[in-house]
Amino acid sequence: MSNIALAFLSAGFGAGLSVIGAALGIGRLAAAAMDGTARQPASAGDIRTSMIIAAALIEGATLFALVVCILLAVKA
Amino acid sequence: MSNIALAFLSAGFGAGLSVIGAALGIGRLAAAAMDGTARQPASAGDIRTSMIIAAALIEGATLFALVVCILLAVKA
Amino acid sequence: MSNIALAFLSAGFGAGLSVIGAALGIGRLAAAAMDGTARQPASAGDIRTSMIIAAALIEGATLFALVVCILLAVKA
Amino acid sequence: MSNIALAFLSAGFGAGLSVIGAALGIGRLAAAAMDGTARQPASAGDIRTSMIIAAALIEGATLFALVVCILLAVKA
Amino acid sequence: MSNIALAFLSAGFGAGLSVIGAALGIGRLAAAAMDGTARQPASAGDIRTSMIIAAALIEGATLFALVVCILLAVKA
Amino acid sequence: MSNIALAFLSAGFGAGLSVIGAALGIGRLAAAAMDGTARQPASAGDIRTSMIIAAALIEGATLFALVVCILLAVKA
Amino acid sequence: MSNIALAFLSAGFGAGLSVIGAALGIGRLAAAAMDGTARQPASAGDIRTSMIIAAALIEGATLFALVVCILLAVKA
Amino acid sequence: MSNIALAFLSAGFGAGLSVIGAALGIGRLAAAAMDGTARQPASAGDIRTSMIIAAALIEGATLFALVVCILLAVKA
Amino acid sequence: MSNIALAFLSAGFGAGLSVIGAALGIGRLAAAAMDGTARQPASAGDIRTSMIIAAALIEGATLFALVVCILLAVKA
Amino acid sequence: MSNIALAFLSAGFGAGLSVIGAALGIGRLAAAAMDGTARQPASAGDIRTSMIIAAALIEGATLFALVVCILLAVKA
Amino acid sequence: MSNIALAFLSAGFGAGLSVIGAALGIGRLAAAAMDGTARQPASAGDIRTSMIIAAALIEGATLFALVVCILLAVKA
Amino acid sequence: MSNIALAFLSAGFGAGLSVIGAALGIGRLAAAAMDGTARQPASAGDIRTSMIIAAALIEGATLFALVVCILLAVKA
Amino acid sequence: MSNIALAFLSAGFGAGLSVIGAALGIGRLAAAAMDGTARQPASAGDIRTSMIIAAALIEGATLFALVVCILLAVKA
Amino acid sequence: MSNIALAFLSAGFGAGLSVIGAALGIGRLAAAAMDGTARQPASAGDIRTSMIIAAALIEGATLFALVVCILLAVKA
Repeated sequence: MSNIALAFLSAGFGAGLSVIGAALGIGRLAAAAMDGTARQPASAGDIRTSMIIAAALIEGATLFALVVCILLAVKA
Repeated sequence: MSNIALAFLSAGFGAGLSVIGAALGIGRLAAAAMDGTARQPASAGDIRTSMIIAAALIEGATLFALVVCILLAVKA
Repeated sequence: MSNIALAFLSAGFGAGLSVIGAALGIGRLAAAAMDGTARQPASAGDIRTSMIIAAALIEGATLFALVVCILLAVKA
Repeated sequence: MSNIALAFLSAGFGAGLSVIGAALGIGRLAAAAMDGTARQPASAGDIRTSMIIAAALIEGATLFALVVCILLAVKA
Repeated sequence: MSNIALAFLSAGFGAGLSVIGAALGIGRLAAAAMDGTARQPASAGDIRTSMIIAAALIEGATLFALVVCILLAVKA
Repeated sequence: MSNIALAFLSAGFGAGLSVIGAALGIGRLAAAAMDGTARQPASAGDIRTSMIIAAALIEGATLFALVVCILLAVKA
Repeated sequence: MSNIALAFLSAGFGAGLSVIGAALGIGRLAAAAMDGTARQPASAGDIRTSMIIAAALIEGATLFALVVCILLAVKA
Repeated sequence: MSNIALAFLSAGFGAGLSVIGAALGIGRLAAAAMDGTARQPASAGDIRTSMIIAAALIEGATLFALVVCILLAVKA
Repeated sequence: MSNIALAFLSAGFGAGLSVIGAALGIGRLAAAAMDGTARQPASAGDIRTSMIIAAALIEGATLFALVVCILLAVKA
Repeated sequence: MSNIALAFLSAGFGAGLSVIGAALGIGRLAAAAMDGTARQPASAGDIRTSMIIAAALIEGATLFALVVCILLAVKA
Repeated sequence: MSNIALAFLSAGFGAGLSVIGAALGIGRLAAAAMDGTARQPASAGDIRTSMIIAAALIEGATLFALVVCILLAVKA
Repeated sequence: MSNIALAFLSAGFGAGLSVIGAALGIGRLAAAAMDGTARQPASAGDIRTSMIIAAALIEGATLFALVVCILLAVKA
Repeated sequence: MSNIALAFLSAGFGAGLSVIGAALGIGRLAAAAMDGTARQPASAGDIRTSMIIAAALIEGATLFALVVCILLAVKA
Repeated sequence: MSNIALAFLSAGFGAGLSVIGAALGIGRLAAAAMDGTARQPASAGDIRTSMIIAAALIEGATLFALVVCILLAVKA
C-alpha cells in the first residue's frame, strides 16, 4: 500500500463531508429564505438576492474543497 | 491489498455521506417551502422557484462529489 | 484479503448510510407536507406537487449512490 | 479470513442502518399525518394518501438497500 | 478466526441497530397517535387505523432485516 | 481466539443496544399516553389500549432481537 | 487471550448500555406521569397505573438483557 | 495480557455508563417532580411518592448492573 | 503490558464518565428546583427537600461507581 | 510500553471528561439560578443557597474523580 | 508508506471538516439575516452589511485552513 | 515509544476537552446572566455576583485539570 | 513513518476542527446580532460594535490555533 | 516513531478542540449579550461589561490550553 492509497481514501470521505456541510448550510438558509418570503411577500426579491449571495459564498468554499479532493483522487 | 482497495472503500462511504447531506438539506428547504405555501398560498409560485434554485445548488455539489466517488469505484 | 473485500465492506455500509439520509430527508419534507395540508386544505394539490418534486430530487441522488454500491457489491 | 468475511460484516450492519433510517423517516411522517388528522379531521383521507405515497418512496429505497445486503449475506 | 466470526459479529449488532430504529420510529408515531386521540377523541378510530398501517410498514422492514441477522447468526 | 469469541462480543452489545431502543421507544409513547390522559381524562381507556398495542409491537421486535443474542451467547 | 475475554468485555459494556436505555426510558415516562399528575390531580391514580405498566414492560426487557450479561460474566 | 485484563476494562467503563444512564434518568424525573410541585403545591406528597417509586425502579436496574461490574472488577 | 494496564485505563475513563453523568443529572434537577422556587416561593422548602433526596440517590450510585474505579486504580 | 503508559493516558482524558461534566452541570444550574433571580428578585438569597448546595455536590464528585486522575498521573 | 501518506489523508479530511464548519456558520447567520429582513424590511441594507462582514470573517479563517490543506495535498 | 509518549498524547487532548467543558459551561451561565440583566435591570449587581461565583467554581475544576495536563506535558 | 507524519496528520485535522468551532461561534453571535438589529433598528450601531468585539476574540484564538497547525504543517 | 510523534499529534488536535470550545462558549454568551441589548437598550453598557468579563474567563482557560499545545508542538 503506497502513499496514493490514503490519498484515495481521503478523496472520497472529504467529498462526502464537504457535501454534508454545504447541503446543510444551503438548506438552512434557503429554508429561512422561503419562510421569509411567505411571511413578507413584498420583499421576496430582496430576500432571494441575499439567499444567492450567501449560497454563493458557501458554494465557493465547497468547490475549493472539492478541487482538493479531485487533486487527491487523480493521483496515480 | 493494493491502493485500489482504499479507493473502493472511500467510494461507497463517500457516496453514502453525500446522500445524507444532500437529502437532509433538500428535505429541510422543501419542508420550509411547503410550510410557506400553506401559510401564504398566494405566493406559491414564488416559493417553488426559490426551492428549485436552492435544490439545484445542492444537487450540483452532490453530483460533483458522486462523480469523485464514481471515479474511485471504477479504478481497476 | 484482496481488494474486493473492502469493496464489499463499503457496499453494505454505503447502502445503509444512503437510506438513512434519504429516509430522513423524505420523512421531513413529507411531514411538512401533511402539516401544511392539515393547515390549508384548499392548497393540498399544490403542496403534494411540491412534495413529489423534492422527493424525486432526493430519490435521484439516492439511486445514483445505490448504483455505486451495487457496482461495488457485484465485483468478483 | 477471506473476502467473504467483510461481506458478512457489512450485510448485518447495512441492514441495521437501513432500518434505522427507514423507521425514523416513516415514523416522522406518520406522526405528522396523525397530527394533521387530529387537527383537521375533514381531510383525513387526503392526508393518508400522501402518507402512503411518501412511505412507499422510503420503502422503495430501503428494500433496494436490503437487497444489496441480502446479496452480500448469501455469498459463499 | 474464520469468515463465520464476522457473521456472528454483525448478526448481534445488526439486530440491536434494527431494534433501535424500529422502536424509535414506532414510539414516535404512536406518541403522535395518542396525542391526536387526546386532542380529537372523535376520530380515535381513524387515527388508530393510520397508526397500525404505518407501524406495519416499519415492522415489515425490521423483520426483513432481522431475517438477514438470523441468516448470519446460524451459519456454522 | 476462535469464532465464538466474536459471538460473545456481539451478544452483549446487541442486547444492550436493543434495550436502549426499546426503552426509549416505549418511554416516548408512554409519556405521550400519560400526557394525553392528563389532558383528556375521559378517553383514558382508549389511550391505554393504543399504548399497549404499540408497546407490544416494540416488545415483539425486541424479544426477536434478544433471541438472536441468546443464540449467540450460548454457543460453545 | 481466549474466547472468554470478549465475553467479559461485552458483559460490562452491555450492562452499562442496558441501564442507559432503561433509565432514560423510565425517566422520560415518569417525568410525563408527574407532569400529568400536576396538571390533572383528579386522575393521579389512573396515571400511576399506566406508569407502572409501561415501566414494567421496560424493566422486563432490561432484566432479560442483564441476564444475558450475567451469563457472559460468569463464564470461566 | 490474559482474560482478566478485559474484565477490568469493562468493569470501569460499564460502571461509568451505568451512572450516566441512571443519573440522567433520575435527573429528568426529579426535574419533572419539582416542576410539578411548583405548579400544583397541593399534590406535592402524591408527586413525591411517584418520584420515589420510579427512581427506585431505576436504582434497581443500576445496582444490578453495578454488581456485574463488581463481579468483573474483583476477578483475579 | 500486563492486566493492570487496562485496569488503570478504565479507572480514569470510568471516573470521568461517572462525573459526566452525575453532574448532568444533578445539574438538571437543581435547575428545575431553582426554577420552581422562583415560580412558587411559598413551597421553597418542599422543593429543596425533594432536590436533596433525588441528588442523594444520584450521589449514591456515583460514589458506588467511583469506588469501583478506585479499586481498579490502586491495583499493583 | 509498560503499565504506566495507560495510567498516564487515562489521567489526562479522565480529567478532561470530568471537567466537561462538571462544567456543563454547574453551568446549567447556575443558568437556572440567574434566570430565577431575574424573575423573582425577592427570593434571590434562597435561590443562591440552593445553587451553592447543588454545585457543592457536583464539585465533590468531580474532585473525587480528579483525585483518581492525580493518583494515575503521578505513578512512576 | 512514507510521511506524505498522512499528509494526503489529513488534506482531504481537513478540507471536508472546514467546509462543514464554514457552511453551517454562514448558513446560520444568513438564515438569521433573511429572517430579519422579512421582519423589518426597512433595515434590509443594514442587515445585509452585517451579514457580509460576519461571513467574510468566517471565509477568512476557512480559506486560511484550506491553504493548510492545499499545502499538505501538493507535497510530493 | 516509551511511557512518555502517551503522557504527551493525553496532555493535549485533556487540555482540549477541559476547555470545551469550561467554555460551554461558562458560556451558558453567562448567557443566562445577560438574559436576566436585560429582563430585570434592577438586580444586575445581584446577578453578576452569582455569575462570578459559579464561574469561579468551574474555573477551579478546570485549572485543576489543566495542572494535571501540565504535569503530563512536562515529563521527560 | 517518522515523527513528521503525525505532525502532518494533526495539522490538517486541527485546522478543520478550528474552523468548525470558529465558524459555528461567529455564526451564532452574528445571527443574534442580525436578529437584534431587526428587532431594535435604533441600536444597530451598538450591536454591531459588540458583534465585532466578540468575533475578534474568537478570531484571535482561532488564528493562534491555526498558527500551531502551520508550525506543524511546514516541518520537514 | 519516537515519543515526539504523539506530542505533535496531540498539539494539533488539542488546539482544534480548544478553539471549538472557546468559540462555542463565547458565541453563546455574545449572542445572549446582543439579544439583551436589543431588548433593553438602556442597559447596553452593563451587559457589555458582563460579556467582556465572562469572555475573558474563557479566553484565559483557552490560552492556558493553547500554551500546553505550543509546548507540545515545539518539542524536538
